[in-house]
Amino acid sequence: MTNETAPALEISAATRAMLSSVSTATITTQLMDRGLRSAFLMGPRPLNPSAPRMVGPAFTLRYIPAREDIDVLSVFSDYDHPQRRAVETAPAGSVLVMDCRGRGKAASLGNILATRFMIRGGAGIVTDGAVRDLGGFQSLAMPTFASGVAPTTNLAQHHAVDLDVPIGCGEVAVYPGDVIIGDGDGVVCLPAHLADEVARAAVEQERLEEFVLARIESGMPLRGTYPPDAATRAEYDRSRG
Amino acid sequence: MTNETAPALEISAATRAMLSSVSTATITTQLMDRGLRSAFLMGPRPLNPSAPRMVGPAFTLRYIPAREDIDVLSVFSDYDHPQRRAVETAPAGSVLVMDCRGRGKAASLGNILATRFMIRGGAGIVTDGAVRDLGGFQSLAMPTFASGVAPTTNLAQHHAVDLDVPIGCGEVAVYPGDVIIGDGDGVVCLPAHLADEVARAAVEQERLEEFVLARIESGMPLRGTYPPDAATRAEYDRSRG
Amino acid sequence: MTNETAPALEISAATRAMLSSVSTATITTQLMDRGLRSAFLMGPRPLNPSAPRMVGPAFTLRYIPAREDIDVLSVFSDYDHPQRRAVETAPAGSVLVMDCRGRGKAASLGNILATRFMIRGGAGIVTDGAVRDLGGFQSLAMPTFASGVAPTTNLAQHHAVDLDVPIGCGEVAVYPGDVIIGDGDGVVCLPAHLADEVARAAVEQERLEEFVLARIESGMPLRGTYPPDAATRAEYDRSRG
Amino acid sequence: MTNETAPALEISAATRAMLSSVSTATITTQLMDRGLRSAFLMGPRPLNPSAPRMVGPAFTLRYIPAREDIDVLSVFSDYDHPQRRAVETAPAGSVLVMDCRGRGKAASLGNILATRFMIRGGAGIVTDGAVRDLGGFQSLAMPTFASGVAPTTNLAQHHAVDLDVPIGCGEVAVYPGDVIIGDGDGVVCLPAHLADEVARAAVEQERLEEFVLARIESGMPLRGTYPPDAATRAEYDRSRG
Amino acid sequence: MTNETAPALEISAATRAMLSSVSTATITTQLMDRGLRSAFLMGPRPLNPSAPRMVGPAFTLRYIPAREDIDVLSVFSDYDHPQRRAVETAPAGSVLVMDCRGRGKAASLGNILATRFMIRGGAGIVTDGAVRDLGGFQSLAMPTFASGVAPTTNLAQHHAVDLDVPIGCGEVAVYPGDVIIGDGDGVVCLPAHLADEVARAAVEQERLEEFVLARIESGMPLRGTYPPDAATRAEYDRSRG
Amino acid sequence: MTNETAPALEISAATRAMLSSVSTATITTQLMDRGLRSAFLMGPRPLNPSAPRMVGPAFTLRYIPAREDIDVLSVFSDYDHPQRRAVETAPAGSVLVMDCRGRGKAASLGNILATRFMIRGGAGIVTDGAVRDLGGFQSLAMPTFASGVAPTTNLAQHHAVDLDVPIGCGEVAVYPGDVIIGDGDGVVCLPAHLADEVARAAVEQERLEEFVLARIESGMPLRGTYPPDAATRAEYDRSRG
Repeated sequence: MTNETAPALEISAATRAMLSSVSTATITTQLMDRGLRSAFLMGPRPLNPSAPRMVGPAFTLRYIPAREDIDVLSVFSDYDHPQRRAVETAPAGSVLVMDCRGRGKAASLGNILATRFMIRGGAGIVTDGAVRDLGGFQSLAMPTFASGVAPTTNLAQHHAVDLDVPIGCGEVAVYPGDVIIGDGDGVVCLPAHLADEVARAAVEQERLEEFVLARIESGMPLRGTYPPDAATRAEYDRSRG
Repeated sequence: MTNETAPALEISAATRAMLSSVSTATITTQLMDRGLRSAFLMGPRPLNPSAPRMVGPAFTLRYIPAREDIDVLSVFSDYDHPQRRAVETAPAGSVLVMDCRGRGKAASLGNILATRFMIRGGAGIVTDGAVRDLGGFQSLAMPTFASGVAPTTNLAQHHAVDLDVPIGCGEVAVYPGDVIIGDGDGVVCLPAHLADEVARAAVEQERLEEFVLARIESGMPLRGTYPPDAATRAEYDRSRG
Repeated sequence: MTNETAPALEISAATRAMLSSVSTATITTQLMDRGLRSAFLMGPRPLNPSAPRMVGPAFTLRYIPAREDIDVLSVFSDYDHPQRRAVETAPAGSVLVMDCRGRGKAASLGNILATRFMIRGGAGIVTDGAVRDLGGFQSLAMPTFASGVAPTTNLAQHHAVDLDVPIGCGEVAVYPGDVIIGDGDGVVCLPAHLADEVARAAVEQERLEEFVLARIESGMPLRGTYPPDAATRAEYDRSRG
Repeated sequence: MTNETAPALEISAATRAMLSSVSTATITTQLMDRGLRSAFLMGPRPLNPSAPRMVGPAFTLRYIPAREDIDVLSVFSDYDHPQRRAVETAPAGSVLVMDCRGRGKAASLGNILATRFMIRGGAGIVTDGAVRDLGGFQSLAMPTFASGVAPTTNLAQHHAVDLDVPIGCGEVAVYPGDVIIGDGDGVVCLPAHLADEVARAAVEQERLEEFVLARIESGMPLRGTYPPDAATRAEYDRSRG
Repeated sequence: MTNETAPALEISAATRAMLSSVSTATITTQLMDRGLRSAFLMGPRPLNPSAPRMVGPAFTLRYIPAREDIDVLSVFSDYDHPQRRAVETAPAGSVLVMDCRGRGKAASLGNILATRFMIRGGAGIVTDGAVRDLGGFQSLAMPTFASGVAPTTNLAQHHAVDLDVPIGCGEVAVYPGDVIIGDGDGVVCLPAHLADEVARAAVEQERLEEFVLARIESGMPLRGTYPPDAATRAEYDRSRG
Repeated sequence: MTNETAPALEISAATRAMLSSVSTATITTQLMDRGLRSAFLMGPRPLNPSAPRMVGPAFTLRYIPAREDIDVLSVFSDYDHPQRRAVETAPAGSVLVMDCRGRGKAASLGNILATRFMIRGGAGIVTDGAVRDLGGFQSLAMPTFASGVAPTTNLAQHHAVDLDVPIGCGEVAVYPGDVIIGDGDGVVCLPAHLADEVARAAVEQERLEEFVLARIESGMPLRGTYPPDAATRAEYDRSRG
């Protein structure tokens, strides 16, 4: 009885490339300019900062609290457990986003499942809960973001219940297909319908800010430079040829 | 793609009657005796303590965080909005349980919808978020429980997305059809498959505890009385005829 | 070096009357319709619910954390201590709003100062910290709102530093002169420039909602009634003559 | 291996009488004047405000977190369980203070034990955790204070381990024999060695403040009145005869 | 009046060796299989991740909140202060576990005491509070875990009161002699009576998981591999010879 | 209407040199010896630990919560926005300290402004909120401290309102001109009037502690060594010549 149908999990190659070149800071500014102030997922931090920037459409996994008589180790022998299905069915190029209600007493996913997801082409993993086997996550080639670390297996606190439905993660709405972007500042959720437009504007913004930063580094005052007044803007335009 | 099917929303009249006569304290003890330590919903408090005790199967409503471009006042003109559907489709005798991720910056439901739910035969309302128009809720004949009060309409923080799916509420798993019981101590969730058995045992436990309390009030020491030793137990049995 | 000048602390009698007749729930809906989702002060609860509804322009008092060598009992012998000045200089009809950074280990104001403020014509007191002498506050004829109760004098945690400057209270911006409204749901801050317009719209909204609620109570379904469709609206208009 | 020996649990009748007549607000001011800023227990609120003011020496009970294999219902059949021993051995006139680490997912004590403690002459109960069977507590003639309400039995979260040792409660140090005082503002801990001196000074302070409050209520300004200048002080002295 | 006697602080060399070779993640899984879901200490993080894995029996130190008149710098001149005694009496090979009630406004221990403990043969230090002189801790050869960093000396917030008693740390029960294990995921407490059995099972589990992970890395799907079905299990058995 | 005048932002070169050579741990001990237990800013952590130790007088910037109609991107085109003025007017050698009410959903300052402040001679930046563009901050030559990271621009949560006024930061009072010192343990605020005296005493304390630590590392017990008894003290004095 879910009231939304999942948008297609597709980003154009051009948009993906642009979004891979800009920061989450720039994207949030573009979103704020469009009236969206809450794109940043509170909690998840990068586990492997040297991994490439993360960009991909969201594939979601929803957890509810565990119950002692349901969430026992034997359920892991079910290859159709929602966690397994998520890892085996998420499209290549997608980002697995998990709603753990921001709770980190137990992990949300372990290293073996994360590895499988990576090998299937996963673009990244995000949880507002914890991960276990931090060392394993840190050595993955794929970027991952979590709100904490806890060795305990997810069943001690979480029950995986739904795939591919709208969720909250880090108190941000994440609809399947929204573009999830992560860098050193954390993770933002870019609504699918704004992806192309924001990508283009973000690239423009960053070009200008690089120009401005160089000026500031050379000793120029903020006045006239940041934001650029007409004269500075003209110089910028000249510099772009 | 939800992986559970909702159990039937049915409690026998006998079980409902027994559960209406016992306290949530007693029920949690019975659940703990069966290995369930986390039946108590952290957060929700009774808004109208003089209302009758609340008992009924859970009908659930799930919220995710709001997004500024989706959750605008005009969506309320949709009579098929999930909140409206929840209120108009929940079975008579059920308890509407809402998952607000424990957030109370905005309300989860207002007084007009709560009134409609009551008139349709609703047995109670529980939210781990807030309610607005507290005075309105307090004057309802139906018991209601909330974690807080906030005048702001739900759209400012919540987006109703799913009906009748497993949710978390107060960091407890609530499956549709679980029996929700509320009194002055708050709200507990009794798994559907244990309802009959726990109801019977709880009634027994309370009879014994009333006997014990009367003895303690008459000045008996704990030793021999609480818990009752064989002699006290025998007296209790005699007192029961 | 404050960068705002305080707006005049004036509300027309008509606006004050209208705002005294409507709920904070209605006001937040009107503000949300104008793009303001965060008018509700998180924390403060009514201490004396039977007092009249609170309406008045904000007069602010800012606290910073106490320091052991500055904030000692002897400072209370200074009649020009900012707390004293606030109480003695706030205009009649104003609401004293205190920024305690949401901390409630010590009180923000005691009963003697609150009494003096009331006698000088104060319309109410709001703090996102605590009050001491709860019984004293509860017996005041003036409405007061606090986030908690703590017997300890403010100097143990707070240092009063500024009057009549923009502050945060309950994580809401409060500019001197904004209209502060409180009822059983808590406290909202209505920006001064919107007061007249929101007051009128709120009165209209409540009239309509009373009509709707009566219909719901009489057994009408939500569909067609809430929100009213054209037919219901027409009936409402007729009922208004 | 505890490094303190418990002071004798004795308060003189005169001191007890004086402390029963003054507010916790006054006591914290006296303590602050002696360099103690943290006498107030953060968390516990009065459960039965109409009960008499609570005054008595602390008798302590320490809990640590529960462990699933140790803390099972069968331990309650041990009449020498620390909880039972606390209730049966605390001196008449003492206040039972429990250290629950501020956690309230489960109760710290139930109504039957509280009743037994009251009948044995207990002066009050304080916990920084929760109580169960709130209605039972509210109908006791003895004042009780708790940080919350939870129906679940203590074993689900707490393990009673020590009696009569120094504890923390509401993040305040409580040594056995310290005087525990509770009223509508909450609970304060008055170190045993200061009890007599603070009691006398508190009575003096309240007499003066009543005089001051009456003047403020009669319309006098703060200047000259609060605190009283020499003239007001002289009038006060005259009024005392 | 403590109701437990400390178990002997002994782990067999074989068990210590096995526990030194497995992860905390594996240990929590083994504990969950035995009904213990809460072995993980919430809060403490490794300060020197390159130190060897931490394994040793718990030696405990309990703190209560500080009081301004008791906890002054001059107490440090007492060589029998509980902190000093803990550091000088804990057995070689033990892990010093401190209960700071999860509070980190001040440190729980400084670098000089930690150094002395290490030189005496200490196996590690764990606190759910903070440490000061982070650089000093990070350069120790001994593993240490803390919930935070704060330069302020412990007396500003903590009063060391007991040695070698059951405590809570990170909201987990720690009994003297329980085996404390720490790695990059944090710290777990393994009840003493389960140490040998869990050690053996954990080694077995890790062997199997390494085999599984290698298969997943080589591109095998979860189905049949994780958990291993009969065929995979047979191959694993063959690989083990 | 602020009731304090800013002290002059001056530290003598000798004091600055001494404070640059000692740790925040030592400074808090000296402050505690003078009755100040709360000099440590809870929250801010070093972003670039390899930067030099931070020492400088506080220049403050105060934020209140943002309001959606005031805090929009266009305000950044005002070169006289308080944030810009802070960065352009803070004296060389000062530390910019920002009061973000401990909230980190949005950044408090971005990399371009931080760079400008550094180039103008700023000695460091401290916020109890977040920063954006973490990588940029980490590559600055100037030390910076923040409580978190968030890519969102400050306008989404913060409104810069005041310069050079007393503020709270990390729940510590910071008066303009107080000396702000930061190292690996975090940030402390040293009241201006104590700077010279504490600097001298701190240097003395560290000399002694280095001597003590060397002894402990060489295997001496705490008794007699830490703190040094008369004999050890005499040896220390000899070692100093």
